[in-house]
Amino acid sequence: MTTVPVGLGPRSYDIRIGPGLIDRPEEFDAWIGGRQVFIITNDVVAPLYLDRLRQTLSGRQVHQLVLPDGETAKSLSTFSDILDAMLVVPCDRTVTVVALGGGVVGDLAGFAAASYQRGVPFIQVPTTLLSQVDSSVGGKTGVNHPSGKNLIGAFHQPRRVVIDTSTLATLPSRELSAGVAEVIKYALIGDAGFFSWLEDHMDSVLALDSGAVSHVVSVSCANKAVVVERDERESGQRALLNLGHTFGHAIEAATGYDSWLHGEAVGMGMIMAAHLSMSLGRIDEQAFVRTRDLIRRAGLPSEPFPGIDPERIRALMQGDKKVLHGRLRLVLLNDIGQAEIVEGVDERLLMESIRSFCADG
Amino acid sequence: MTTVPVGLGPRSYDIRIGPGLIDRPEEFDAWIGGRQVFIITNDVVAPLYLDRLRQTLSGRQVHQLVLPDGETAKSLSTFSDILDAMLVVPCDRTVTVVALGGGVVGDLAGFAAASYQRGVPFIQVPTTLLSQVDSSVGGKTGVNHPSGKNLIGAFHQPRRVVIDTSTLATLPSRELSAGVAEVIKYALIGDAGFFSWLEDHMDSVLALDSGAVSHVVSVSCANKAVVVERDERESGQRALLNLGHTFGHAIEAATGYDSWLHGEAVGMGMIMAAHLSMSLGRIDEQAFVRTRDLIRRAGLPSEPFPGIDPERIRALMQGDKKVLHGRLRLVLLNDIGQAEIVEGVDERLLMESIRSFCADG
Repeated sequence: MTTVPVGLGPRSYDIRIGPGLIDRPEEFDAWIGGRQVFIITNDVVAPLYLDRLRQTLSGRQVHQLVLPDGETAKSLSTFSDILDAMLVVPCDRTVTVVALGGGVVGDLAGFAAASYQRGVPFIQVPTTLLSQVDSSVGGKTGVNHPSGKNLIGAFHQPRRVVIDTSTLATLPSRELSAGVAEVIKYALIGDAGFFSWLEDHMDSVLALDSGAVSHVVSVSCANKAVVVERDERESGQRALLNLGHTFGHAIEAATGYDSWLHGEAVGMGMIMAAHLSMSLGRIDEQAFVRTRDLIRRAGLPSEPFPGIDPERIRALMQGDKKVLHGRLRLVLLNDIGQAEIVEGVDERLLMESIRSFCADG
Repeated sequence: MTTVPVGLGPRSYDIRIGPGLIDRPEEFDAWIGGRQVFIITNDVVAPLYLDRLRQTLSGRQVHQLVLPDGETAKSLSTFSDILDAMLVVPCDRTVTVVALGGGVVGDLAGFAAASYQRGVPFIQVPTTLLSQVDSSVGGKTGVNHPSGKNLIGAFHQPRRVVIDTSTLATLPSRELSAGVAEVIKYALIGDAGFFSWLEDHMDSVLALDSGAVSHVVSVSCANKAVVVERDERESGQRALLNLGHTFGHAIEAATGYDSWLHGEAVGMGMIMAAHLSMSLGRIDEQAFVRTRDLIRRAGLPSEPFPGIDPERIRALMQGDKKVLHGRLRLVLLNDIGQAEIVEGVDERLLMESIRSFCADG
């Protein structure tokens, strides 16, 4: 069992990491203040883990809402459905919202918890690698908009994050790979040693070797916690966590959020960011190749993709939240393990990098 | 010109009060960080003040959205419309949202500012007495739900509140009275001297005597600021500000939010709370009569009202946000100028008070 503390003053909390935590009442009891619990999950996770979690939380009024699986559920309309369901109970201000599932469930449940009666406590129980290493930590919550991802939401920190690593056994391998994309991101932006470790242990991680998985989740959460502690509301350095995301969000938006997994788009986005970093002379070809190859070995897409107009990718990048005063800001690499936020990138080189990954471009 | 500071650490701000402030660029310039401004107003206020405010803010990209007037606009659907309009521009993270109008505009604009890209700055320019003395101060934002008022929202403090008292000249007298209800509330919960002052000067206030209006707004904002500073997120004493509101919200919900103004319902709710306080022996009959008479002199409804089932009022009160662990919490009077949060009020006396104000009950 590992504990990663997130130090945010009055909003501090612990991330607990280990196998079987979902069955342990002591991981939850002290963090549920009232007698009401409202579990939000989806129709893939519910048959696997909902009864077990209900059992763990028994002795309270436990209510639940099972959402459809998938990124398309991450909308203002589902947000409204959750609030309706909580009001039907009706939940009072002491209710604790528990998010059981991946990033979509966590982001929706967190935004609902942030907005229900102007804010109630919530606990994250992430069941995908992506959400365990990324979205469940740091308090970003929200929904997508047809104009782009996560454009509507709130900063609302959980009371606790309970990561049961044994839930990864039921995760489809494609989603496991998508989670590894965010793991590689932490290595790329700030931890060259961890990058080398991943080069050596990628096969063990993908085979869900228990020690390797715990190491990956703990190191990733610790990396994220440090960044979040320094910059809770993303006024500065937290933006480094967006490596690959401005490209990735544009890929997701251009394809309607239904063909690429978020982690797959981020993986491709990191390759594109590394390519642009190489074009700009920030990294050498070897660093680009190591980046691309590790992402490829994680089982993520790494080849130019068909069916997307490069100009559309560029336009969608401009609508990204990272745009400041109309100027595009990108996270680029200066080395493996070293990233920088860059404004005013050469437009011609940017378009060249985008085009080289659009098979029709 | 008066300045009332609201001290909330990094979220501190000033409330500026005086005639003609809407025309003074210096009241806004230092509090607008970026080059984009997004004004949210309604179709009653826009013809009166929008052009003047645009002129004051000129030299920037000024966008606007004009909403329909009225409490029915305060919905998740309008919230969604605002976010859509901001994304069409598109506004970036440095946009400043400016709320120009009454409480509905301020609450909607504030919640949109809280949620747009997880939070952008906003400035309140309240143009009704109700919003000047109450909703524009303290950071409560949100929308109504068919189940009840303000059930969805966020705490999001403005950067500044600019109160141009001369805008009250265009306010219908019914709305002026509704604002006075909240003014009387501050006097009832914590300022017996101000209550006496209001008994002596109610006619000057209703006649919009400039000195009287400035005094009323300044004293009310200062009273609210003290309560908000002590308890920003309403975990305790801030709930005193809900005097009359649990009854009032039930009246509004029972009548579909379209026949009673919020302040009218609060005025009636304060009379009901005073009546119940008298039944419980907390205040004497004279204090009840003074309370009822001052509310009546403000031009607010004070007589039993037809068409509402007392049992429905009681049920709607149970759905109020102030309900904790299923137990109703009411703000009751111990004296004029002294209020207390009370749990577990005698159910029979509560129903008697409700019935005595339901003409059909």
